[in-house]
Amino acid sequence: MAEVRFFTDLGAEVRVPVDGDTPQTLRQSVLQTQRALGQLGWRCCPLPPGGFTFPLASEPDFDWRLLGARRGICTIDSEERDGVWYAGQFYTRRALDPNPRMKLGRAIKYSRGARSTDPAEGVEGEEGSAFRYVTLAVFRGEGRRREEYAVPREPRPAGGRRTPASREALSA
Amino acid sequence: MAEVRFFTDLGAEVRVPVDGDTPQTLRQSVLQTQRALGQLGWRCCPLPPGGFTFPLASEPDFDWRLLGARRGICTIDSEERDGVWYAGQFYTRRALDPNPRMKLGRAIKYSRGARSTDPAEGVEGEEGSAFRYVTLAVFRGEGRRREEYAVPREPRPAGGRRTPASREALSA
Amino acid sequence: MAEVRFFTDLGAEVRVPVDGDTPQTLRQSVLQTQRALGQLGWRCCPLPPGGFTFPLASEPDFDWRLLGARRGICTIDSEERDGVWYAGQFYTRRALDPNPRMKLGRAIKYSRGARSTDPAEGVEGEEGSAFRYVTLAVFRGEGRRREEYAVPREPRPAGGRRTPASREALSA
Amino acid sequence: MAEVRFFTDLGAEVRVPVDGDTPQTLRQSVLQTQRALGQLGWRCCPLPPGGFTFPLASEPDFDWRLLGARRGICTIDSEERDGVWYAGQFYTRRALDPNPRMKLGRAIKYSRGARSTDPAEGVEGEEGSAFRYVTLAVFRGEGRRREEYAVPREPRPAGGRRTPASREALSA
Amino acid sequence: MAEVRFFTDLGAEVRVPVDGDTPQTLRQSVLQTQRALGQLGWRCCPLPPGGFTFPLASEPDFDWRLLGARRGICTIDSEERDGVWYAGQFYTRRALDPNPRMKLGRAIKYSRGARSTDPAEGVEGEEGSAFRYVTLAVFRGEGRRREEYAVPREPRPAGGRRTPASREALSA
Repeated sequence: MAEVRFFTDLGAEVRVPVDGDTPQTLRQSVLQTQRALGQLGWRCCPLPPGGFTFPLASEPDFDWRLLGARRGICTIDSEERDGVWYAGQFYTRRALDPNPRMKLGRAIKYSRGARSTDPAEGVEGEEGSAFRYVTLAVFRGEGRRREEYAVPREPRPAGGRRTPASREALSA
Repeated sequence: MAEVRFFTDLGAEVRVPVDGDTPQTLRQSVLQTQRALGQLGWRCCPLPPGGFTFPLASEPDFDWRLLGARRGICTIDSEERDGVWYAGQFYTRRALDPNPRMKLGRAIKYSRGARSTDPAEGVEGEEGSAFRYVTLAVFRGEGRRREEYAVPREPRPAGGRRTPASREALSA
Repeated sequence: MAEVRFFTDLGAEVRVPVDGDTPQTLRQSVLQTQRALGQLGWRCCPLPPGGFTFPLASEPDFDWRLLGARRGICTIDSEERDGVWYAGQFYTRRALDPNPRMKLGRAIKYSRGARSTDPAEGVEGEEGSAFRYVTLAVFRGEGRRREEYAVPREPRPAGGRRTPASREALSA
Repeated sequence: MAEVRFFTDLGAEVRVPVDGDTPQTLRQSVLQTQRALGQLGWRCCPLPPGGFTFPLASEPDFDWRLLGARRGICTIDSEERDGVWYAGQFYTRRALDPNPRMKLGRAIKYSRGARSTDPAEGVEGEEGSAFRYVTLAVFRGEGRRREEYAVPREPRPAGGRRTPASREALSA
Repeated sequence: MAEVRFFTDLGAEVRVPVDGDTPQTLRQSVLQTQRALGQLGWRCCPLPPGGFTFPLASEPDFDWRLLGARRGICTIDSEERDGVWYAGQFYTRRALDPNPRMKLGRAIKYSRGARSTDPAEGVEGEEGSAFRYVTLAVFRGEGRRREEYAVPREPRPAGGRRTPASREALSA
């Protein structure tokens, strides 16, 4: 049986078994386990330097549980901000205008200010400047919306409450 | 069956099986194993650069076994200090006053002086200064107390002694 | 049973069981699993600094699924380019003329421009120059074509459609 | 069943199963496996930057097999030295006098001269100086002798030879 | 059952089960698996900074399969050289004369010129000089020949061909 590596919210490494005999079923099973445990804040996808990249069309219903993150609100500098909590830190959501000179289209970016203890290769912005930051994810480009990364539209069982995800089995 | 990675007090990496078929039971099982083995000084949560962060309300009854640490006292510079032992080193407990200029509220910090052999990204304080330090944990902010990180209030069995934790089974 | 470590397209680490009792059958089984999961964009071979190297004769039918990559086309600077997608980034295919002074023969190279967040040891080109790049693979030299790295020539079952690779079992 | 990670004398990573249902029995089992395989020169405790630290009282009968090391003698600069072999290198034993100015008590240190290929964070001594060294272990301080780290005093079976440790089972 | 970690010639990480209930049988089993898979170019011993070190007496019949390497010949600068292939690169064999000033005896060294993408800590020779190199192995010193690292002298079965190693079982 295959195994996926997770890090709990405290940082413990846990390997969790997943089913799947074919590439497609294994893939589904891994994604379902990411959703089930990501909801607890467990992470299995280390933040790549420069952040995750997805097509812009995936932003509206991106399933942040896949990364162990969740949408939230945080007040920074007396300003209430939309964004995402990931690994105990808040990443502010920002809409970036197209930059024709840099040939960059419209984008949505989730980022936070850098800390002195952030690993150097993940920190962006001019060195020495006060505007140094760490990106969690960028949604950009004309690529097709990734269905498998979206919040699943589950049918509600007739006349019943949905089983809370935290009580669901771990694997497909 | 899932597995949690631990480091013994000597630094050996040991993978320990844990039960749990749903996210909630797996999570409980991982936390119980952390408590049982953390009591031996085994660690499963590597110290993140800048230290662990918890809400201030979690400080009074935080369960240090989760990190493989334990409360203790150490005499440094002829002064008896409260603090925590973690991985063979003592981290002094300090209450930090609010700093309105930095917009930081009251906090409790556990830290120790840096050594020349500490990895650079975990060391804080001005470079070249004598006041360089490593933080184990900061308790700060108005967040709700994390029940799951607290020392459990176990009922004492009527007329009997509690089983010492070191004899308890490893998993829930 | 042996296990191969993969990284999904989101970066999750998954260990997948493979069969094989002798070195040759284990090897075949690992390669088949690389093909089956590489097709999903899962990678099991981290990019070595300086890129993968293969003989020039392996280029025409190299099986990019082994690396979790796939041939593709991308428009960069209004120019349509041939190349390969790997881990969400596009590597342009370039034919390099022989360089007798450097004693280098004809080669095909797959590379992309470097980003500020690329790990330093994988970036090539003069430091400070604008032409810094990262190599995915170089095909060079007179070595014999590596049959085991080529796209397999599978016989089509008489009168039937081939089973899509994504429905095939994971191991030989 | 739990697993301990070892590195053989050639550097291969091997995971070895160990028994133990409670924290105490798991701990005993891990230590016994460390002794059994440490005798072959297999290591499970990577050298921490600055070396291992133990109380001074543990030095006389410290069980070096726990670290995959063994006491030995080596002739360096025509001088026969006591010390310890660890991972193919010899660490000289030195008794350090108390240093009241640095508030350091008597200590026994096992160290060797640094090489150009040693990882920077483990090298001590003034940078640029000729006296750069790497510490394997320091025994210092008034702490209680750690019974579990000592060479076990095994009763000799009446009228018989002890089973050589290399023939003993791996786990308790 | 114990497990050994290997890297295939493409760099995939594969864990392979090995037998062995006692330290000696586990050790034999690990070495046999290293020979069987090392013959495919699979490596389980990452190159330590500065290279592997063995006694000079082990050089003549050292079993390079243990490292996933093999003896070979390569033409460099129009000169045919003896050496060893390891991880796709050629290391030239060189006999070093004794250096009484440095107190170094006769040695055989396998090394190659450094590349810009080699990790810094494995590169030797004066910084900035053109003679920077990476060492695979040094055979030096009066130590006893290591029987367990030598090519086994297997008895040929009477009247029969030996089973090719690639068809042998993986473990002892």
